[in-house]
Amino acid sequence: MDASKKELADSGNLKIEWAKNHMPVLEQIRKEFEAEKPLKGRRIAMALHVEAKTAVLVETLAAGGANVAITGCNPLSTQDDVAYALDCKENISCCAKYDCTNAEYYEAIDKVLDMEPDITIDDGADLIFKLHKERRDLLPKIIGGCEETTTGIHRLMAMQKEGALEMAVLAVNDAQTKFMFDNRYGTGQSAWDGIMRTTNLLVAGKTVVIGGYGWCGRGIAMRAAGLGAEVVVTEINPVRALEARMDGYRVMPMANAAAIGDIFVTTTGNCDVISTEHFLKMKSGAILANAGHFNVEIDLEGLKKMSTDIKTVRKNIKEYTINKNQTESREQNSNKSGNKHEIKINVLADGRLVNLAAGDGHPAEVMDMSFANQALSVKYIAQNKLSHGVHKVPAEIDEWVASLKLKSMSIEIDRLTDKQRCYTDDWEAGT
Amino acid sequence: MDASKKELADSGNLKIEWAKNHMPVLEQIRKEFEAEKPLKGRRIAMALHVEAKTAVLVETLAAGGANVAITGCNPLSTQDDVAYALDCKENISCCAKYDCTNAEYYEAIDKVLDMEPDITIDDGADLIFKLHKERRDLLPKIIGGCEETTTGIHRLMAMQKEGALEMAVLAVNDAQTKFMFDNRYGTGQSAWDGIMRTTNLLVAGKTVVIGGYGWCGRGIAMRAAGLGAEVVVTEINPVRALEARMDGYRVMPMANAAAIGDIFVTTTGNCDVISTEHFLKMKSGAILANAGHFNVEIDLEGLKKMSTDIKTVRKNIKEYTINKNQTESREQNSNKSGNKHEIKINVLADGRLVNLAAGDGHPAEVMDMSFANQALSVKYIAQNKLSHGVHKVPAEIDEWVASLKLKSMSIEIDRLTDKQRCYTDDWEAGT
Amino acid sequence: MDASKKELADSGNLKIEWAKNHMPVLEQIRKEFEAEKPLKGRRIAMALHVEAKTAVLVETLAAGGANVAITGCNPLSTQDDVAYALDCKENISCCAKYDCTNAEYYEAIDKVLDMEPDITIDDGADLIFKLHKERRDLLPKIIGGCEETTTGIHRLMAMQKEGALEMAVLAVNDAQTKFMFDNRYGTGQSAWDGIMRTTNLLVAGKTVVIGGYGWCGRGIAMRAAGLGAEVVVTEINPVRALEARMDGYRVMPMANAAAIGDIFVTTTGNCDVISTEHFLKMKSGAILANAGHFNVEIDLEGLKKMSTDIKTVRKNIKEYTINKNQTESREQNSNKSGNKHEIKINVLADGRLVNLAAGDGHPAEVMDMSFANQALSVKYIAQNKLSHGVHKVPAEIDEWVASLKLKSMSIEIDRLTDKQRCYTDDWEAGT
Amino acid sequence: MDASKKELADSGNLKIEWAKNHMPVLEQIRKEFEAEKPLKGRRIAMALHVEAKTAVLVETLAAGGANVAITGCNPLSTQDDVAYALDCKENISCCAKYDCTNAEYYEAIDKVLDMEPDITIDDGADLIFKLHKERRDLLPKIIGGCEETTTGIHRLMAMQKEGALEMAVLAVNDAQTKFMFDNRYGTGQSAWDGIMRTTNLLVAGKTVVIGGYGWCGRGIAMRAAGLGAEVVVTEINPVRALEARMDGYRVMPMANAAAIGDIFVTTTGNCDVISTEHFLKMKSGAILANAGHFNVEIDLEGLKKMSTDIKTVRKNIKEYTINKNQTESREQNSNKSGNKHEIKINVLADGRLVNLAAGDGHPAEVMDMSFANQALSVKYIAQNKLSHGVHKVPAEIDEWVASLKLKSMSIEIDRLTDKQRCYTDDWEAGT
Repeated sequence: MDASKKELADSGNLKIEWAKNHMPVLEQIRKEFEAEKPLKGRRIAMALHVEAKTAVLVETLAAGGANVAITGCNPLSTQDDVAYALDCKENISCCAKYDCTNAEYYEAIDKVLDMEPDITIDDGADLIFKLHKERRDLLPKIIGGCEETTTGIHRLMAMQKEGALEMAVLAVNDAQTKFMFDNRYGTGQSAWDGIMRTTNLLVAGKTVVIGGYGWCGRGIAMRAAGLGAEVVVTEINPVRALEARMDGYRVMPMANAAAIGDIFVTTTGNCDVISTEHFLKMKSGAILANAGHFNVEIDLEGLKKMSTDIKTVRKNIKEYTINKNQTESREQNSNKSGNKHEIKINVLADGRLVNLAAGDGHPAEVMDMSFANQALSVKYIAQNKLSHGVHKVPAEIDEWVASLKLKSMSIEIDRLTDKQRCYTDDWEAGT
Repeated sequence: MDASKKELADSGNLKIEWAKNHMPVLEQIRKEFEAEKPLKGRRIAMALHVEAKTAVLVETLAAGGANVAITGCNPLSTQDDVAYALDCKENISCCAKYDCTNAEYYEAIDKVLDMEPDITIDDGADLIFKLHKERRDLLPKIIGGCEETTTGIHRLMAMQKEGALEMAVLAVNDAQTKFMFDNRYGTGQSAWDGIMRTTNLLVAGKTVVIGGYGWCGRGIAMRAAGLGAEVVVTEINPVRALEARMDGYRVMPMANAAAIGDIFVTTTGNCDVISTEHFLKMKSGAILANAGHFNVEIDLEGLKKMSTDIKTVRKNIKEYTINKNQTESREQNSNKSGNKHEIKINVLADGRLVNLAAGDGHPAEVMDMSFANQALSVKYIAQNKLSHGVHKVPAEIDEWVASLKLKSMSIEIDRLTDKQRCYTDDWEAGT
Repeated sequence: MDASKKELADSGNLKIEWAKNHMPVLEQIRKEFEAEKPLKGRRIAMALHVEAKTAVLVETLAAGGANVAITGCNPLSTQDDVAYALDCKENISCCAKYDCTNAEYYEAIDKVLDMEPDITIDDGADLIFKLHKERRDLLPKIIGGCEETTTGIHRLMAMQKEGALEMAVLAVNDAQTKFMFDNRYGTGQSAWDGIMRTTNLLVAGKTVVIGGYGWCGRGIAMRAAGLGAEVVVTEINPVRALEARMDGYRVMPMANAAAIGDIFVTTTGNCDVISTEHFLKMKSGAILANAGHFNVEIDLEGLKKMSTDIKTVRKNIKEYTINKNQTESREQNSNKSGNKHEIKINVLADGRLVNLAAGDGHPAEVMDMSFANQALSVKYIAQNKLSHGVHKVPAEIDEWVASLKLKSMSIEIDRLTDKQRCYTDDWEAGT
Repeated sequence: MDASKKELADSGNLKIEWAKNHMPVLEQIRKEFEAEKPLKGRRIAMALHVEAKTAVLVETLAAGGANVAITGCNPLSTQDDVAYALDCKENISCCAKYDCTNAEYYEAIDKVLDMEPDITIDDGADLIFKLHKERRDLLPKIIGGCEETTTGIHRLMAMQKEGALEMAVLAVNDAQTKFMFDNRYGTGQSAWDGIMRTTNLLVAGKTVVIGGYGWCGRGIAMRAAGLGAEVVVTEINPVRALEARMDGYRVMPMANAAAIGDIFVTTTGNCDVISTEHFLKMKSGAILANAGHFNVEIDLEGLKKMSTDIKTVRKNIKEYTINKNQTESREQNSNKSGNKHEIKINVLADGRLVNLAAGDGHPAEVMDMSFANQALSVKYIAQNKLSHGVHKVPAEIDEWVASLKLKSMSIEIDRLTDKQRCYTDDWEAGT
């Protein structure tokens, strides 16, 4: 290993070590895996954000006896030092780099699948999709997969609905100890960590527009309010819209929110949440960030076309300049002699997951819970024969993760007494 | 009608009118019911908290063509003026009074059932329980029932599990537009309204212990924090315990919380959440309130036995005095010559639902949504043949209630574009 | 004492006893006063809200050896049972009744002054004003006064500026342990207690407009947000306006806020904060409450003139109906055949202090601190010769009150070490 | 300029440009300075954190006609690219580098003073201190200085008290538009930005101990709660301690807090807030950060002596390992055979200002206000003859800054009507 390589590995290992020290649940599982080797002989293909917390999961799986090949699940979320450190470890190969092209991205997916996995772990379902479209020969060998994120589950449910899903998948995202914590408290904090460190701007006193009030959205909204912002929520679901309002936020269509927002964060899982009609209404200087899985929520193609100038004004910030009159005249074919009016729009991290592309991703402690679910779900797949389709994570895994987490925080809770257990089962006690 | 009766009716009607003006969703439904008479000829027996908002529901059902007989579902939650005003209305009979004895309470249940209902509406399942235990002759005539509260659903699920439920029941409580709003924002506010007006004490700077972090519990915790309290949560469920901690609250067993709490609010649906072992550890002057359905959460029998003195120190507040040494010596048979040490414990509203027994119950706006679900569920029962067992409220009712509520608040929300709808259904779009 | 009188006294004493049990600082002072009799032979005239907490102060002063005569400082804030109970006590005479006329109000002020006081205690400066305008003969006998509220201090400073203040006054309101707690946490909670119990409406999801971001205003805003409201602040001071914005609230002129508010609370100390131009812009059903000292903040005279109908729709709520077209046509002299458009405006407690006129006033614990300052200020006046003019409460009183309060809450804090004290005094230590 | 120098300047200028775009008040002042040249011929010596926002102030002063020489005020807060970019500008010389030694630090102070300034701008009073101790020859030329921070003012007041202050100083820190915003909202956010990006740990669910509840401390506490932490405050001032409690936080001595904290942030301005007695009680893994001006709040010397191992575990994080038994045995001379028990303590940024040493400092928008006060105070010094001693910033500067800031945020506020102005001045209006 030459000096610069060694430095890279050292830097990666330092990060991994730090993460490991803050992931006590996974640490406990690793110890058990080391003793029991429940994944002995398994080949696991992974496509996750390649950074320190993921590395701890990878090591845990390897400790359980598996061979692991991993690539990224997002072109901007890979940390090269961690990737290299992982690749140096036994029974682990890592094929991912920061800021790869789309071609490189999919090439890496292919390379990971070349290991002929029997288990997959996805964050966005790219491995499973590739398997079903181009690598169908590998499907028969698969005994099951795990999916980490809402967007991926959504995609898999769509596949299942069309009868196109030909493998078993555990919906790890839908474990309570995953989505209620990782999506809410994890994204809630890490999105703002990313935005604050990237912009060095004050959140207090700003109008923050959150696109989508799902678990991620409510986490981001909660923290925005906690940082002193006025929060505006956009939604398509009336029940969620009502919830947002009862939580004290303003609720309105994006077409109205566009004109008043200082910072926009999208987290819907859908495309074009902010699109050309909205850019034109924005205040000059608006900040746009995405915290949803894919980079489709902000219509960057549309924005690019409208812009007269695009430049990097700070690390991870691109400023798009729209000449409003020109745009409007183009659209409305009106007189061009009007006063020039420029809108400058700042897009963070090219509309990719702002917490990962412009930060270090979720805090270690929430990933501890999410990845504990992953590790135990992989073990469950290895030990049970599952039918094709999307499956729930068994409730006992969920409860076990929660209990272990509480223990690591030295928090004790009550237990039902016998009398209380009887009362619970009894339906005869009344007023 | 003599003068005092008239005054009673006027007072009741004024309250009903005020509530009606703040229940726009139910108002919309009433108009449709008046036009369509979907409940024509139906006999509906109800056991709900007899106060103004409930009266608006009763009137709505009567407007739909039904005959309605109603009694209370809690000995301390009836407002006599509203009860009388209701009883004066056409096609409605009301049989409920404030502070009735247990005997009177069950007598009234019986009297309401005497109408030979085909539909029941319960809040705690007392009607359904009575039907199954003592009035089985009436069961064949029942086409279905509605249940309003978590506790009732819990009871009914226990019955169903034992094969003892012989009628169809719609779990109105479990509609999203019910439990997420009524239980959380409704109980969250009304419990504190009740506690504040009853005690005139400051919440800020106090340690508030919440027993249970279900939907009611988290509403009460959220508002306690919003009022400046330090919040402590007790739980038996590890996932909820973790959530409470991530929400910034302290989590511990009641045995520890007992010693540090200034105000205790129980909301578990279970018995003995605060019991004899806890009273002894409390600070003198502790305030105890219950926001769960039944008055079993605080072990008042146990407290009474331990007390050397019980007196009313303010309206709706009973002060129990425990002589700690005496109690301990009784228990430990130790030397009685020790210094006397008194603990004074203040119980609000005799441990009954504090928001109703010491206040006016939930704000009209949340009951608007809950009772809109009730009215539409009753209509659904009247128009569909349902099998025995607990049924979900149809999703379209839920969504319709939310949409109508948003409209009444002049809130518009986004709709999916065609492109977005396609994206949602598509599973091929990736990174 | 006849039976109904005895009942009245009992009811009053029960309330006083409850308050006393939650005012540990004043209790400590009472013990010292009883032993030392620092007010022996003093005659103290008071005009404060006559309710239970005030009664505890009155008893404390009497315990110190004083003769006390008290009346109210607001026509709607007197509680008759407490007034009667006080009047029955030795060395205390109370002359106040609920819902008195203006004439009765000022008559009572006079009657209290008839005792020829040497010390006054005011809440709004009405005693002092009367002394300077009509009872100047009594001025020479006065050795000093105490003023409880921002509004009163404001009035006294205006008098002093004009050279019209001919006695010494301690600005009790300006003690840190008074205004930072009573005005902020006290008003913050009690205003909402009053509004919630009076309306039984949901605060969550509503737009609440707060007129003024002084210490009262920020308390009310903080609690409104804590109850789930969207908060809008109006201000005239740019620094406070900025603070409100940084605290996450919307800031705008009342002319804009009028159109979007669901609940309005004024707390500026000034007149016409909400006036005729604003009423016309309001949503029908808007709720108006005042938490400022005098009932001048909402222009009720103007509202009355605009209204076609005024009726009581619930206890303490008057509904004013404005026929918008008529009003506009009257103003604009336009065609009267337009469609009728009614706005209904609900005013709580006739625009008087909502926490007192529609509630029980501040929680006992904050009044404990405010009245501890009063009691110690009275003692200070009795023992020191002060020049004419407005004086600060001595810092040692402030600190003593805070320390005693912390002790009563079992809270310990750090002390400076010798090294830290040196560091504090040293200016040579640098980077 | 060689390539790497050019890159450095470009990087610095990009940062300055970004900051400038978010400092509209200073921008407005710069325009006026350019037109009026109020500082023509002035020589200004500065010791501030050399980063982008400061650079905008420096440029503003230069635009006003001044010659400016600047160095840092903290060894770890200089950003080298900004320093270089500044040094390249006309009439500006910058002498500061990141991670300088103490000797280099004071050398740079001297070098800046070599310009023979007539005005100084300090952040911590190091220039003024140097002037009074070693460069007294320069004192007669000084017409005044500005001080930016609480700690500096504190030092200057101590000097003044001892009669040692021989120049005029404007207490810029004490302008309302400075300390209420910069110290509270600025430090509140930037301290957490620094901690989150440095640790990548979750704040939610952690116990955060804040040393000191001054304006910085309450900002940090507010944001900690907003990020989901349980907040514990330590104080020496009883009034502030009470405030912290009423704000919902736990209050206790550091000796107790040490045992329960996960993250500690000091912000007292004093030394040894966390010291040897506290380290020993801490949970292993505790995170320690300082947000006070000097690096004296955490006793690092003491910690170093207790530690058996010190290593960098992540950028800006040093882990100190304490062998508890050894330490105790050393202290207690007890048996050494006990079980080894290690405590690992993580110190961020060597106990220096965490927001600057491990982040980008305050958000631009708050520095806009602080530095607008600086620029206008410098102009005020240039145009007025001030006596020796600490002076307040004139109120009109404060109000002007606030108004201009509101305008830049497009926020309008109310103005007093004539009637209201009369009411304000009138003391005769009563109940």
